[in-house]
Amino acid sequence: MSKVEFKQLSPADFFYRNRELAGFDSPTKSLYTAFREIIENSFDGAEIGGINPDIFVSIKEKSEDVYTIFISDNGIGIPGSKVPKALAKLLFGGKYVERQSRGHFGLGASMTVLYSQITTNLPTRVLSCTRGSEVIDEYHLMIDIQRNEPIIRYHNQLPNKKKWHGVAVEVNIEGDYGRAHPKILNYIESTAMVAPYANITFIDAYGILYKFNKVVDEVPKLGKAVLPHPRGIDTEKMLRLIRVARQKSMKNFLTSNFQRVGDITAKNFLKYVNINPDKVPSQLDHDEIVRCVQGMNSFEDFLSPETKCLSPIGEAVLEAGIKKELEPKFIASITRKPQAYSGHPFVVEVAMAYGGNKIESSSEPTLFRFANRIPLLYDQYADVAAKVIRSFNWRMYKVPQNGNLAIITHIASTKVPYRTAGKESISDRPELEREMKLAMQVCARKMRVYLSRIEREERSAKRASIFEKYLPYIAQFATKLSGKKQVPPTDFVKSVKKGDD
Amino acid sequence: MSKVEFKQLSPADFFYRNRELAGFDSPTKSLYTAFREIIENSFDGAEIGGINPDIFVSIKEKSEDVYTIFISDNGIGIPGSKVPKALAKLLFGGKYVERQSRGHFGLGASMTVLYSQITTNLPTRVLSCTRGSEVIDEYHLMIDIQRNEPIIRYHNQLPNKKKWHGVAVEVNIEGDYGRAHPKILNYIESTAMVAPYANITFIDAYGILYKFNKVVDEVPKLGKAVLPHPRGIDTEKMLRLIRVARQKSMKNFLTSNFQRVGDITAKNFLKYVNINPDKVPSQLDHDEIVRCVQGMNSFEDFLSPETKCLSPIGEAVLEAGIKKELEPKFIASITRKPQAYSGHPFVVEVAMAYGGNKIESSSEPTLFRFANRIPLLYDQYADVAAKVIRSFNWRMYKVPQNGNLAIITHIASTKVPYRTAGKESISDRPELEREMKLAMQVCARKMRVYLSRIEREERSAKRASIFEKYLPYIAQFATKLSGKKQVPPTDFVKSVKKGDD
Repeated sequence: MSKVEFKQLSPADFFYRNRELAGFDSPTKSLYTAFREIIENSFDGAEIGGINPDIFVSIKEKSEDVYTIFISDNGIGIPGSKVPKALAKLLFGGKYVERQSRGHFGLGASMTVLYSQITTNLPTRVLSCTRGSEVIDEYHLMIDIQRNEPIIRYHNQLPNKKKWHGVAVEVNIEGDYGRAHPKILNYIESTAMVAPYANITFIDAYGILYKFNKVVDEVPKLGKAVLPHPRGIDTEKMLRLIRVARQKSMKNFLTSNFQRVGDITAKNFLKYVNINPDKVPSQLDHDEIVRCVQGMNSFEDFLSPETKCLSPIGEAVLEAGIKKELEPKFIASITRKPQAYSGHPFVVEVAMAYGGNKIESSSEPTLFRFANRIPLLYDQYADVAAKVIRSFNWRMYKVPQNGNLAIITHIASTKVPYRTAGKESISDRPELEREMKLAMQVCARKMRVYLSRIEREERSAKRASIFEKYLPYIAQFATKLSGKKQVPPTDFVKSVKKGDD
Repeated sequence: MSKVEFKQLSPADFFYRNRELAGFDSPTKSLYTAFREIIENSFDGAEIGGINPDIFVSIKEKSEDVYTIFISDNGIGIPGSKVPKALAKLLFGGKYVERQSRGHFGLGASMTVLYSQITTNLPTRVLSCTRGSEVIDEYHLMIDIQRNEPIIRYHNQLPNKKKWHGVAVEVNIEGDYGRAHPKILNYIESTAMVAPYANITFIDAYGILYKFNKVVDEVPKLGKAVLPHPRGIDTEKMLRLIRVARQKSMKNFLTSNFQRVGDITAKNFLKYVNINPDKVPSQLDHDEIVRCVQGMNSFEDFLSPETKCLSPIGEAVLEAGIKKELEPKFIASITRKPQAYSGHPFVVEVAMAYGGNKIESSSEPTLFRFANRIPLLYDQYADVAAKVIRSFNWRMYKVPQNGNLAIITHIASTKVPYRTAGKESISDRPELEREMKLAMQVCARKMRVYLSRIEREERSAKRASIFEKYLPYIAQFATKLSGKKQVPPTDFVKSVKKGDD
C-alpha cells in the first residue's frame, strides 16, 4: 500500500474536485453562488464603462431540481474572440489589475459554467456584443475540465440591429431553489440598497416580478487601475518588474514602476537600502534584490497608497439606502479615511441603525456586510466585523446590543482579503480589524449621544407626567385657598411634555 | 477606461496572488502554515508505509525576520525523478485518491517553497530517498511561478550509506516567529496528543528541545483507497469513468467502478433509471447520462459507503491522550458510526473533559478541533463544531458551559469539507452538523450523569457533615443519660462521608 501515484491537476480539475472552495458546495449554496457570480459580472461590466447598470435576471424551473438562470446586461460586453476563454477557462480574466471590482479571482463565471455542466451536462449559452459592434456573438460553451480549455459547441454571429451592447448568459443549474430563494432575494435587495444608480428587474422561480428602479443618475466613479505601492512588494513581483523594465537606473525604475514614489523618495529609499541610484535594475544581485524588497516593507517615508482606485459608498448614499430599507429611528454612519494592508489600499465604512419596526430585536445586533458593494450573506461568524462586534465594549457606549440594532459594514479595496474564493467572509487582517473597530466606536459614540437624549426625554416625560397627574388637584386646592371659583387650565402640560429638555 | 485586458494565470500565479486562500497571509500565519504543511507531509509519508513516524524538526533564526525550518522524516520517500514536481509545481501530488490523509489539495509543500522564494529569494533544499534505494537525491528547488514549473538550481545523488529512507526539507521563510511560536507549540503538542505512536523531536527558535516519545507501537491502519460511492457522482466523473471503461454492459460497468454495488443493486438501479442493463456504457446518450447521475443521487437502496478508507482515533486512544494532556476529573467520549456526505464517508468523534486545573475556566467551553488528526488552530468561529456548541441546549443537559469544560472534536474523512485551502475550519454540511450534534448529545448525557452524581455526593457530604458536627454532643448526651463513662467513638463518620450515597 505504500506506492503513491503522482498526478498533475489543471486548475479546472482542482476546482472541480474542490468546488466548495469557490462557494459551490450544497445544492442550495451552489444555486445561490451561480446567481450572484453572474449578476456581479454584469454590474462590473456596466460600471467599468461608466454605464448605469440595467440588468434583467430571471430564474425558471426547467425540470425537477434544475433551474435556468437567464441574465442580460447593458455593459461593455466581451469581445467575441475572448468569450470562450472568459467564460469557459478557469483563472482567465480581465480583473487581474490593482483596481476595485466585484470580481476578484477569475473564477466566478467559469465555475458557474463548470457546475452547470457537471450537474446537468448542458452547455451554457452566451451572447456578447461590445459597444459599436455590428454583430452579436453567440456561443454554446462547455469546459474540458481535465485540460482547462473551452469546448465550443456552437458559434454564430447575429446582426446587432438594436445597437445593443453587453452580455447575456443562460445557464442551467441543479439546485434547491426553495431553500436558496430567501438568500437570493436578500442578495438582490441588499445589492439594490447600495446601488441606487442601477435598474434591476428580477423574476423569481415562482413568477414574481421585482423591480428596483434607479433613484440617482450618477454611476460611482470607478476606481482607476494604479501602479503598485512599494509596501507589500515581494521578490517575485520585483523580479517581474525588473525583467520588463526599460529604465537604465534604479532611481528611474522606482519612480516609473511604483505609485507615489518621486525623485526624493526614490533617492532616500536607495540610500536606506544602500543601493547606488545609478545602478542598472537588471544588474541587481540576489542580496540587493532581497535588501530592496525587505527595505520596501520597512522604509517608513513612503507616502500612503493612492486611493483613486477606491470607490466607497459614502455616508450620504449609505444612510439613504438604510433609511429606505430599514426605516430606523436613528442612524449613525462613518466613512473612514483610506488605509492599506500589504500595499493594498482599503476604506472601511460602518453604519449603525437603531429602532423602528423593520430591524429585528434579537440577542445580538443584526449585521449587514458588504465588500466592494457585494452583500456577504454566508459565514458571518468568520468575518472580521463579527469578531469586532464580539469583543466590542458595548457597555461603555451604553448601546444595548440586544435592542433593535443593525450594523452595516462595507469594505472597499483593490484586494479584499476574502477568506475563501467563494467571497463570503473577510479575514481579520490587523489593519482591517483596527479600522473596523475605530469606525464602530465613532458610530457607537453618536449612538450614545442619541440614546442619552432619548433617556433624558423619557425621564423628563416621566417627571412631566407626575406634574400632570397632580396639577389638577393643586389647581383645585389653590383655587379653594384663594377663594376663587374658576380653576385655571392645567392641560398645557401635555403640550410641554414632548419636546426638548 | 473601459478597455479590459484579458490574461491567463497559471495555478502557481493564482495562488501567488491569492496566497491567503492557502493559509499564507500575515508573516505570523505564514510561518505557522509553512511549518505545519511540511510536518503534515512527513506524517503522511510515514503512515502511508505503515511506519511509526520518527520526525525531527527545528526552526532557527537565519537573519532578521528570516527563519530556517528543517525537517527530516523516516517515511517512504519521494522517487528522485518526482521530487522537483512534487515540491515545486502546484496542484501536483500523490494524494488525489479517495483515502484519508492529512494532505488534501496538492498545495502545501509547493506553496511553502513558493512563499520561501518570494520572501527570501532562496531555493528550498530537499533530500529524498525511497526504501531500498542506493542513492539519496538532493535538489535545490525554486518555482517558475508564471509557468508553474520547477526550477532545478542544483541536483546531486549521494550514496545512501545508512540505509535511510524518507524526505528532508530545509526551507527559509520570512515570518514573525515571536507571534507564531505559541501556535507552533500548540500545534505540535496537539499533534502528539492524537499520534501517540510517533516520535517527534522539536527544537524551537529559542533553542529549547521538545521530545514526544511514542507510547504505543501500533501505527493506525491507514485507510485504503477505494472506488467511488455512487452517491455524490456528477456527470463529469461519470463521463470520465465511461471514457476509460472496458466493460461491455452497464451492469458490469456499475459493479466494477463503484463501491458496494453488486449484481442485484446494479439491476435494481438500472431499472430505477430505466436503462437497459446490457447497454454498452460508451453508447449512453445525453439524457441517459443525466438520468443515471441524478438517479445515483436519489436512489435509496445503495449500501452506505465503505469505511475501510477511514481511520478514526478511537475512544480509548482519544481518552488516553486527553487524560495525559488535560488531566480532567471526568471525561466522556464517543466515536460515531460512519456516515457520508456527497458520497464521501466520514466519522465524527467528540470528547468532553471536565474539571481539573489544566482546563481553563472561561465563559464558553474550550474547543480543541482535529481533522484527519490535524489540529485546527485558526478560524474557530467559522467551524461546524463552534456552530453546534453555540446552538446546543446546555441547560437541558445541566452542563455548565462556563465551567472548566473542554470539548474535543475529530472528523476523519476521505474528503474533509474544509472551508479554505488553508485547512483551518470545516464547513457546516448538514450531514456533518447533524453527526456533530448527536455526538455532543451523547457526551453531554454522560456528563449530566456524572455531574448529578457529584451533586448528590456533595449533598450527602453536607448531610454527613451535619451529623459529624452534632454526633459528639449526642454521644456525650447519650453517655450521660445511660450513666456510662466511656463516650463511644464518633469519628467513623469521616470515613463514611466520602464514598457512595
